[in-house]
Amino acid sequence: MPLNTYLEAINNELEGYSYGENPPELYAPIKYLMSIGGKRLRPALTLMAANMWLYKWQKALKPALAVEVFHNFTLMHDDIMDNAPARRGKPTVHEKWDVNTAILSGDVMLVAAYKLLENVEDSVFKKVFSRFNQTASEVCEGQMMDMDFAIRKNVSKEEYIEMIRLKTSVLLGYALELGGLIAEADEESVKLLYSIGENMGIGFQLKDDILDVYADPKKFGKQVGGDIIENKKTWLLLHALEVSENLSEGARLREWLKKTSFDPMEKVSDVREIFNSLEIKPAAEALSVHYFDIAFAALDKLNVSEEKKQPLKAFGLQLLNREN
Amino acid sequence: MPLNTYLEAINNELEGYSYGENPPELYAPIKYLMSIGGKRLRPALTLMAANMWLYKWQKALKPALAVEVFHNFTLMHDDIMDNAPARRGKPTVHEKWDVNTAILSGDVMLVAAYKLLENVEDSVFKKVFSRFNQTASEVCEGQMMDMDFAIRKNVSKEEYIEMIRLKTSVLLGYALELGGLIAEADEESVKLLYSIGENMGIGFQLKDDILDVYADPKKFGKQVGGDIIENKKTWLLLHALEVSENLSEGARLREWLKKTSFDPMEKVSDVREIFNSLEIKPAAEALSVHYFDIAFAALDKLNVSEEKKQPLKAFGLQLLNREN
Repeated sequence: MPLNTYLEAINNELEGYSYGENPPELYAPIKYLMSIGGKRLRPALTLMAANMWLYKWQKALKPALAVEVFHNFTLMHDDIMDNAPARRGKPTVHEKWDVNTAILSGDVMLVAAYKLLENVEDSVFKKVFSRFNQTASEVCEGQMMDMDFAIRKNVSKEEYIEMIRLKTSVLLGYALELGGLIAEADEESVKLLYSIGENMGIGFQLKDDILDVYADPKKFGKQVGGDIIENKKTWLLLHALEVSENLSEGARLREWLKKTSFDPMEKVSDVREIFNSLEIKPAAEALSVHYFDIAFAALDKLNVSEEKKQPLKAFGLQLLNREN
Repeated sequence: MPLNTYLEAINNELEGYSYGENPPELYAPIKYLMSIGGKRLRPALTLMAANMWLYKWQKALKPALAVEVFHNFTLMHDDIMDNAPARRGKPTVHEKWDVNTAILSGDVMLVAAYKLLENVEDSVFKKVFSRFNQTASEVCEGQMMDMDFAIRKNVSKEEYIEMIRLKTSVLLGYALELGGLIAEADEESVKLLYSIGENMGIGFQLKDDILDVYADPKKFGKQVGGDIIENKKTWLLLHALEVSENLSEGARLREWLKKTSFDPMEKVSDVREIFNSLEIKPAAEALSVHYFDIAFAALDKLNVSEEKKQPLKAFGLQLLNREN
């Protein structure tokens, strides 16, 4: 199936789905957040994986939505914690309503994700459920590490990779694994699917961090340079600090990190220049490609026909080469 | 089994249970909240129900904890929303740590409740799971109504009962139902169990509202009069407003509701006097007893021996007659 077939099915199903009705102010924020967009890449992964074994990939549609609803629940709560005013160019839920509503709608949204899992067949349900629980806990652990890193002085590159693995990648791994479980794929294939998603996820997030510094503002959805402005300890910054320890660039970079009052444009452009002279971008790209390579190698090992693997491979390449 | 046997088993199991380890600041608030007490009445209900059919009620222990952990998750988030400084005489999680930690620990605590459900046998799991989802959604709906009532001008007594049914009673209903489901009781019995818990729950909450106004401060855990001080629209206040519409007491009561600056002791004592002259307490007690009666009638109908029903009956009477 071409990717668009899955995306259409996902968006159709989401449009018709009711998360609940009363009281309206509890459920309206869910409808709102789910309606303002998103790439839907997690449920697409589930359907792609299911379709490697299952002719009727539609069977995996509702469970695939569980992953998407869960992901959006984390966004609703993360946006409170990050005090974010906007998401996908629209006001965040806690801005449009209030913090209490965002907490409580988020809670019921997490329950709504579990409700969608009710559509999994009994034979594989226990496994799907326990792996979902594990993944959901890990995503929370990753978010806690992320918040912790913001106030910590020293974070290693290894810790950063572990944080993004938990916060982002395990859910991509689970999305693929879920498709395999629903299609009743063999255990080895299910493990490979998870590993594909997990490694693609790390590569994907590293690519995100690169784009945050280097994207073409005309193509990028968010403000370019946001991470630099707020001293976000991404792999790029951590690597730059490491390799510049005894260089003049290191001193310049540390100066910028200490400044509390500055022209944002100037900071972004100068830090980018420092990164350039330290060759941070090619290093980060190589690492991103490294994780995608692990994912593609796992995909190669999967015991299904090349034709069946093709959509996921194309999708991975698209993530790797995206410019926004 | 005497109640204490269940409570001991519950507290033992809770003490040994690990919700997760890393990062510590994510899981420490869960351990903290679970360790500062609580009556554990919900898991006790589950075990009591299970033991009506099941000799090995211990089988229901971990799922019973799911209900207790879920309940405490709602407390952690409700305390943020209510801006509550203390819970069970100790600082609330968002006070001891911070709001973000309380949001995120609460999230992973909800997942931890689901994890505990993994211990239910496959044959009844789907039913246990879907009913848990339904109940969890309803509890959130009740909390939203509660917050909404605080800012609304007019709330009817019927709406208040529906709010406490959702916020409090459905979980008591589910606690009993869960015991029946695990013991593989017949469908009719499971329905009766739910109805017992649901109606006891409404009676229990009404009793709580009465105690908030009339408890002996030496015996009551919380500050007596808290609801009066903050104009909480309980059944007692709503009923008092209704029956006093054309009386001098009504005018006096409305005066108190409008005052923004007052001596709390004076407000509590005068509003209590108004309630007394309007005979609010006996009316509320009659209604509480009415719901307990429905519960006891359902308990009578249950198709198990009197001996098996005895602990739950004793427990209900204890809730009905409690003074704190």
